[in-house]
Amino acid sequence: MAIVMDQAALTAFLAREFMQVAEDFTVTHVDDDMLEVRLNVDARHLRPGGTVSGPSMFALADVAMYLAILARIGPVALAVTTNCSIDFMRKPEAGRALLAQARLHKLGRVLAVGDVLIRSDGAADVVARASLTYSIPPAQR
Amino acid sequence: MAIVMDQAALTAFLAREFMQVAEDFTVTHVDDDMLEVRLNVDARHLRPGGTVSGPSMFALADVAMYLAILARIGPVALAVTTNCSIDFMRKPEAGRALLAQARLHKLGRVLAVGDVLIRSDGAADVVARASLTYSIPPAQR
Amino acid sequence: MAIVMDQAALTAFLAREFMQVAEDFTVTHVDDDMLEVRLNVDARHLRPGGTVSGPSMFALADVAMYLAILARIGPVALAVTTNCSIDFMRKPEAGRALLAQARLHKLGRVLAVGDVLIRSDGAADVVARASLTYSIPPAQR
Amino acid sequence: MAIVMDQAALTAFLAREFMQVAEDFTVTHVDDDMLEVRLNVDARHLRPGGTVSGPSMFALADVAMYLAILARIGPVALAVTTNCSIDFMRKPEAGRALLAQARLHKLGRVLAVGDVLIRSDGAADVVARASLTYSIPPAQR
Repeated sequence: MAIVMDQAALTAFLAREFMQVAEDFTVTHVDDDMLEVRLNVDARHLRPGGTVSGPSMFALADVAMYLAILARIGPVALAVTTNCSIDFMRKPEAGRALLAQARLHKLGRVLAVGDVLIRSDGAADVVARASLTYSIPPAQR
Repeated sequence: MAIVMDQAALTAFLAREFMQVAEDFTVTHVDDDMLEVRLNVDARHLRPGGTVSGPSMFALADVAMYLAILARIGPVALAVTTNCSIDFMRKPEAGRALLAQARLHKLGRVLAVGDVLIRSDGAADVVARASLTYSIPPAQR
Repeated sequence: MAIVMDQAALTAFLAREFMQVAEDFTVTHVDDDMLEVRLNVDARHLRPGGTVSGPSMFALADVAMYLAILARIGPVALAVTTNCSIDFMRKPEAGRALLAQARLHKLGRVLAVGDVLIRSDGAADVVARASLTYSIPPAQR
Repeated sequence: MAIVMDQAALTAFLAREFMQVAEDFTVTHVDDDMLEVRLNVDARHLRPGGTVSGPSMFALADVAMYLAILARIGPVALAVTTNCSIDFMRKPEAGRALLAQARLHKLGRVLAVGDVLIRSDGAADVVARASLTYSIPPAQR
């Protein structure tokens, strides 16, 4: 499915609709296959010991999938997460941003499903993986 | 398995080890069967429209399961979430706290598994449900 | 939501629409709160060592949730599973039937979500837990 | 991690240890990146309407991940599935075999985690996706 919102459009959408969290995330790549978002790690994302918290990684996976859907269907602010299954596999490297790569497997009439892989910036190992389902409200389709 | 940390002990642990988030959560009930935590909803937990964000509900489910494990094994700060599958089913009611009830199904040598149900304070409907697996580090067992 | 298919109606539906697997399962209880199905364990459900296989437990959880939905909306053969997250926690006891108890958390216009707990017949410990989402086709609602 | 069991070794292992299901599955590819297994679709895998059943796809995902782990650690028959989250996205094409591609994200001391994509033979669309966690018993490591 064609990309209808590019990096600039998604960034503007995030700044306009999700002011509270927009500065946490930077859209770094968008194409047919994959969308990448960076978590700009800050003190409020950390747990004792300096590692990024689970909820911060969940938020990153969630926003990456949301933007991957919007890139294809346009600025539908009301798409909502219905399910997320997330595996935390390794401690993120201290002092590094996290990068999430989202890929869609299905973009249906009602449901969208995809996978997200999270890595520390510059590292090959996967820190966390998530699969997410979004529900797309009928009025907006 | 017997409860070795009560409501007061868990509250003190949270304040000491998780200063950054301790004020978000209040342990409201602990017994053999179930542990309940309240999310003290604040502006930073909300999405546009006034509904509690997915990451805030994830954080609530995660802390409820963590405390349910600690209540049985003591203050093992290093237990880590390895998997969470969460379903978001209804919009939380605006202007209400959220309550999470955690129940353990297994507390093994290496893994602990349980379920969490999240409701708006005073409401019967389940807003979200989550199942979580924690890994318990060997040095701490 | 009221029960519109009782134990006898669900059993007849299973025999008529799912001939191939109907003899594997017995509906043992249906009420507002919970539906219970028994897996009549047979050689074809076992792995080496005599333990019930993962796919057999998945099939049991899946049919229990399916029947819990049908009990409320009637014989909608085309409802389909969209997601299942299942945790295997203990080995089932050898030579015993398995019992699955399904509870619905949501029965919406498009999606139904619920939890299933699986135990060995006569035992208190949970062998496996699953949460499932079903999609209900519009033509059938 | 290096491959220590190739296609022939995995096929022989399956035939020896999992006689009951060995003829259902054919290992079609093994390398560092990915292991592929085919479900040789037969009447017993089908639901009314001729579509492959959910439990059959679960079984396929489960065996693909199991063999991907064994390919790296050798014939450890006792590795067990602890969690599977599976999304069913499309109906498989009638009269076609299913192919499952398994990729490992982590092979740790205690847990292994990976993803499986299932497609109809010759088709590009993903029919189902699964993520699985296996526990590797200490005596066998």
